[in-house]
Amino acid sequence: MADDRVWGRNPDKALLKSGGRRADEIAVLAGARGPLSEIVALAHRAGVKVSYRTRDQLGAMAGTDDHQGVVARVAAAEYSDLEDLLVIPARRKEIPFFLALDQVQDPRNFGALLRTADAFGVHGVIVPKHHAVGLTEAAARTAMGAVEYIPVARETNLVAALEKLKESGIWIFGAAADNGVAPWAADLKGPACLVLGGEGEGLRPLVARTCDLLVTVPMRGGVGSLNVAAAGAALCYEVARQRAQGPKTA
Amino acid sequence: MADDRVWGRNPDKALLKSGGRRADEIAVLAGARGPLSEIVALAHRAGVKVSYRTRDQLGAMAGTDDHQGVVARVAAAEYSDLEDLLVIPARRKEIPFFLALDQVQDPRNFGALLRTADAFGVHGVIVPKHHAVGLTEAAARTAMGAVEYIPVARETNLVAALEKLKESGIWIFGAAADNGVAPWAADLKGPACLVLGGEGEGLRPLVARTCDLLVTVPMRGGVGSLNVAAAGAALCYEVARQRAQGPKTA
Repeated sequence: MADDRVWGRNPDKALLKSGGRRADEIAVLAGARGPLSEIVALAHRAGVKVSYRTRDQLGAMAGTDDHQGVVARVAAAEYSDLEDLLVIPARRKEIPFFLALDQVQDPRNFGALLRTADAFGVHGVIVPKHHAVGLTEAAARTAMGAVEYIPVARETNLVAALEKLKESGIWIFGAAADNGVAPWAADLKGPACLVLGGEGEGLRPLVARTCDLLVTVPMRGGVGSLNVAAAGAALCYEVARQRAQGPKTA
Repeated sequence: MADDRVWGRNPDKALLKSGGRRADEIAVLAGARGPLSEIVALAHRAGVKVSYRTRDQLGAMAGTDDHQGVVARVAAAEYSDLEDLLVIPARRKEIPFFLALDQVQDPRNFGALLRTADAFGVHGVIVPKHHAVGLTEAAARTAMGAVEYIPVARETNLVAALEKLKESGIWIFGAAADNGVAPWAADLKGPACLVLGGEGEGLRPLVARTCDLLVTVPMRGGVGSLNVAAAGAALCYEVARQRAQGPKTA
């Protein structure tokens, strides 16, 4: 499990100095000072999450005791910039189709959603930098190689990222557990970004308010809720269906 | 993990004599004779899979060395009979909607599909008795309680079960990786059973030939394939959409 870990002061300093693009989290020995505080400052500058652990916890993370008080969790693939994502549809001469994930926590759900997004021709996935699972090895495994194809942008402020999409003429459709319109009643044929909430919590209120329209997959049954990966599959399918069927048949 | 195991000669004999409905598999000490061969005969009569293991393997399965040479894997919920499934739509005054899973192997996929099926109002799920994951604890956990609501019938011969559904006027729609019609081009508003193939392999040829129509979710992307749980979510959604939108708009 340690192939997504980088430990030791110099390796982690190098990781953070290069912009921290691949670093998901820096775990530092609690109470430590000196060279470690320099690493913490670098992490803050790069916008990388810092957590404090015991020496044993760091050893367990790194799989070795040679961690010198600092272990970084790194992504299994490079993250992209939002700007890079936004130019993809035009380059492919396609109608923009993005997927934003608000605080999805489970690496398997994240990986499954990446694979689904790839299969339905999504141009890029946007995730928040905090309180969300990153491109971990577990996510990459579940994505079955899709991490190599679908770019993921990690944004400090998801609401600001969605606003930027809106400025580019993209409509934001949030998946809500209830009170939204049925997906087939929404016009998803134009430039669109679907937003899915995390497991259990759903969309954060501010994220929901940023959406142009909330859609709800009508539910029945005893449990009456869809897993986020299943909801993502149903909604990506609906976008593909509407676009394939053309403007009049939705 | 051992709460889905029943070990010891008398407990396993009782399990099998009661018809074996909850037994997914009987693991027996390789090369053993005497009382154990009686258990093997009971298992064969009940149609329960028998596997042969070493003493250590049995100990690991049971979580104890007191297994007396036999450990049963039991389902986390009762299986239903196909006949019981077939009467549910009429009782609910609904158009029949079933889901058959041909050799799905991963308990998380199975559990995710049970939750999805429950959420979309599927009346029952049909799985083959062999070469498929059963209602294990892992499946039940992923299903988030849906195993309590959605009946699962386990059939020795899946093709024969599908033929029985056809005799009841149910159309069989198989999900194929390619060469099927787009799901929105299929009329899924009548009595329907969706059939999904296992991970990687897809539908077995004989199962595919039993289907009235093959449907294919159009794919793009670098990986270009959907996980079986995602395909199930997209297709169950399509059935729900067509039925909600009525006869003319599909």
